[in-house]
Amino acid sequence: ERISSFSCRGWIMEVWKFCKEDINRIIFALKVGLAVLLVSLLILIRSPYHVFGSSIIWSILTVAIMFEYTVGATFNRGFNRALGSLLAGVLAIVIAQIALSTGRVAQPIIIGISIFLIGTITSFMKLWPSLAAYEYGFRVILFTYCLIIVSGYRMGNPIRTSMDRLYSIAIGGIVAVLVNVLIFPIWAGEQLHQELVTNFKSVADALEECVKKYLEDDGSNNPEFSNTVMDEFPDEPAYKKCRSTLNSSAKLESLAHSAKWEPPHGKFSHFFYPWSEYVKVGAVLRYCAYEVMALHGVLHSEIQAPYNLRITFQKEIQDATTEAAELVRYLGNDIRDMQRSLKTPLLKKVHVSTERLQRAIDMHSYLLTSIYDQPSDNSSKPLQKLSRTSSNDLSNQMSEFGIKLPDEQNPNSGSFPPPHTESYHEAMRKHSRRLYSWPSREVDAFEEEGGYSADFVPKMRALESTAQLSLATFTSLLIEFVARLDHLVEAVDDLSNLAKFKIQTP
Amino acid sequence: ERISSFSCRGWIMEVWKFCKEDINRIIFALKVGLAVLLVSLLILIRSPYHVFGSSIIWSILTVAIMFEYTVGATFNRGFNRALGSLLAGVLAIVIAQIALSTGRVAQPIIIGISIFLIGTITSFMKLWPSLAAYEYGFRVILFTYCLIIVSGYRMGNPIRTSMDRLYSIAIGGIVAVLVNVLIFPIWAGEQLHQELVTNFKSVADALEECVKKYLEDDGSNNPEFSNTVMDEFPDEPAYKKCRSTLNSSAKLESLAHSAKWEPPHGKFSHFFYPWSEYVKVGAVLRYCAYEVMALHGVLHSEIQAPYNLRITFQKEIQDATTEAAELVRYLGNDIRDMQRSLKTPLLKKVHVSTERLQRAIDMHSYLLTSIYDQPSDNSSKPLQKLSRTSSNDLSNQMSEFGIKLPDEQNPNSGSFPPPHTESYHEAMRKHSRRLYSWPSREVDAFEEEGGYSADFVPKMRALESTAQLSLATFTSLLIEFVARLDHLVEAVDDLSNLAKFKIQTP
Repeated sequence: ERISSFSCRGWIMEVWKFCKEDINRIIFALKVGLAVLLVSLLILIRSPYHVFGSSIIWSILTVAIMFEYTVGATFNRGFNRALGSLLAGVLAIVIAQIALSTGRVAQPIIIGISIFLIGTITSFMKLWPSLAAYEYGFRVILFTYCLIIVSGYRMGNPIRTSMDRLYSIAIGGIVAVLVNVLIFPIWAGEQLHQELVTNFKSVADALEECVKKYLEDDGSNNPEFSNTVMDEFPDEPAYKKCRSTLNSSAKLESLAHSAKWEPPHGKFSHFFYPWSEYVKVGAVLRYCAYEVMALHGVLHSEIQAPYNLRITFQKEIQDATTEAAELVRYLGNDIRDMQRSLKTPLLKKVHVSTERLQRAIDMHSYLLTSIYDQPSDNSSKPLQKLSRTSSNDLSNQMSEFGIKLPDEQNPNSGSFPPPHTESYHEAMRKHSRRLYSWPSREVDAFEEEGGYSADFVPKMRALESTAQLSLATFTSLLIEFVARLDHLVEAVDDLSNLAKFKIQTP
Repeated sequence: ERISSFSCRGWIMEVWKFCKEDINRIIFALKVGLAVLLVSLLILIRSPYHVFGSSIIWSILTVAIMFEYTVGATFNRGFNRALGSLLAGVLAIVIAQIALSTGRVAQPIIIGISIFLIGTITSFMKLWPSLAAYEYGFRVILFTYCLIIVSGYRMGNPIRTSMDRLYSIAIGGIVAVLVNVLIFPIWAGEQLHQELVTNFKSVADALEECVKKYLEDDGSNNPEFSNTVMDEFPDEPAYKKCRSTLNSSAKLESLAHSAKWEPPHGKFSHFFYPWSEYVKVGAVLRYCAYEVMALHGVLHSEIQAPYNLRITFQKEIQDATTEAAELVRYLGNDIRDMQRSLKTPLLKKVHVSTERLQRAIDMHSYLLTSIYDQPSDNSSKPLQKLSRTSSNDLSNQMSEFGIKLPDEQNPNSGSFPPPHTESYHEAMRKHSRRLYSWPSREVDAFEEEGGYSADFVPKMRALESTAQLSLATFTSLLIEFVARLDHLVEAVDDLSNLAKFKIQTP
């Protein structure tokens, strides 16, 4: 008994959390209850029932079928229902008159054939891609037509039947629309706006989270890739949100489709608000998110750059990431606040920090391809971090390599070369000789074995070298992300112009 | 007039093409027509109409609302409708009896409150994520409950009203199901199977197309990235298909959801066929497709590796790609033919060719980071292609670099070093000295200017060097794609086991 009361409480807690997450859910449910209650009153109270007659039950059906979550979707469905009913009504009356004039024998045959044709044509049309959004309308045409023509045939007077029904449907539709619009309206446009802003935030968060993990991850607690490829990545909440961004295209499109039906309201106060631009910005943002997915792929790849190599470029990677994420957030906030502000300074900052990263990679590209003896435990102390003005400190770093790299050809390199006294030039040359000692050594060894060498390069070494290139991949993807930000800024600018966002005064 | 007749013909051609593309579309439309005709006959013909009475019109409504494209979806909708109607009927009868016993004044109040509560509760429940698939069922409960209880109140005898209606709905449901299953059934399972196989093909095609373009593209006819980021890429049909694969998760899920409702049929001849495994395989395949998207991103990136560098690794990249695409196609064909075959040899071939690529990159990683004088026109003759057993020919290549690289420190390098006479060792060392001459030279120059150097590295050089790393990115992504193939093979194996695919005898 105690367990059941506990799980019951847990269940209530869950429902409570679900409601608190979005209060609109409760509002929507109460509104539906109110709308069906209102149309039911038309029947429960004596006087309106006597006015409208029994066909008033169609208004209940209309409310139940038409009431949608957002105002725009309700309008859209109402439009489908109204136009569908109207078309079906007119068609039914015309066909019924034709059938009536043909006499008693031909009448049911004509009606039957017309039903078959209407069923076939509407079903075919709703499969047509550009008409798929009006699927519900075609359904309405089909059953309204059948109902009117068939009951007209049995009960006579199809015009009277269809008129009664259209009245009822109109009453149901009006009640549904009034309740939906006048009582705490839930606007599709608002939801779309919110969704897009959230997507910006998710992408920025996911980028930062991914890079943070990449720089932190010393390989010690890295779970097997095979376990994680389809995993939920429980410790990466932002990644999960970003992944849902990738699947949000359908949601954005349907919200935009609904939003177009809504009158100007609240913040969105002019007609022909460019809702379709939201979908376009969402698409460009998704292109950025693809890069985050690829970065995430490198983060969880089997082939990993050694920790101390990653940490060497930490500052540059971190800076570029922070600037890029800040720009994305800034764009998101601009949309949220519906303001247009100058993005050039921020974009420039992003470019500068990305260029600095490129330059760092450029200057130290030998680190990415050289095979120096890797310490076996990855968690050992990192290579000295690159300073911002790196060339002066580079000889320091070189000396550090000198310590780490046992070199058979240069027995002196084990000693500490005094920093700053040895010229950069010389350190560099010495270093490069060290780096390139490995293939020659290898080839020598092979040549002694008889020259048949190419297929015997040990697998692990090959992997280790490409492992260092994995850092290049990571940074390239990061740079590609930044390159796509230009397009994102452009798309947001287009949106700001078309939506007439107010220009922010500094 | 001529234009209109022309556009009319064009329109007919388009419809014809649309039908030919998938003959099921016509079949579906005709089936709907037939189903509504059949239920209409119940009213049009005198004798059944006298048996069932006027409530038979509900069967038309049921057919129009229930008839779905696939068998599974129709079953699912029928189940929703049946269970919803039953629950609503039972509930309505119970509440009506309670209301009846409370007397004339309280009765409409109780009915009104119950309608409000049912409306609120069903609307709230259909927002709950795990119940969202049964959205239609909740709608059915709501309007059926309202209809029965309200018309019962006005016409008396709610049990009689609800029973009549349930009969009609049952007749409509049975007609819809029989027509759907017995006449050219369109199985959701079949569609899901087909869709997954198509997705395999798209990913393989897109990978090959992307790599082909990458290796072919000499930069001469490369459109601006800014024009192409959101472009439709008209010359890349496979990419478009692959992109639609990324958005296919919702489609696969809904098909799997429908397929679960289908009885064993045709090829899928045992109960509890693992349709959800199809969704899982689709998800793993999508993870591979993300890598193709990233490769495509590199292909259209602003920062491009020079053509002759790309062409240097052409053979290795091409081999790895061909093997990988072949494996993906092979997996797709295995699913198509519902057979289980040994993938180890193919997987091994993919690994071997990928390792060869890794090794090539490893051996020639200096190409990726070095700044040798780039010929200004990218379309100049490519670097000599790497041979398969590359180390022997490497000195050839070195000599080629010797020609290309004017070297101030080694005045002799301009002459042709006789191929094969100079040892690989020496060529390598000479080359590496050349490579590393550039930063020292640069630093020397800066030092003469006063040592304030770091911020003055020219932008284009930084870009050029990272441009070469873009090749590393491309290959890393390709390697990552191959790494993910292991998981794809695993997922397909799981599917084969659970779906009891027949083991292919060689």
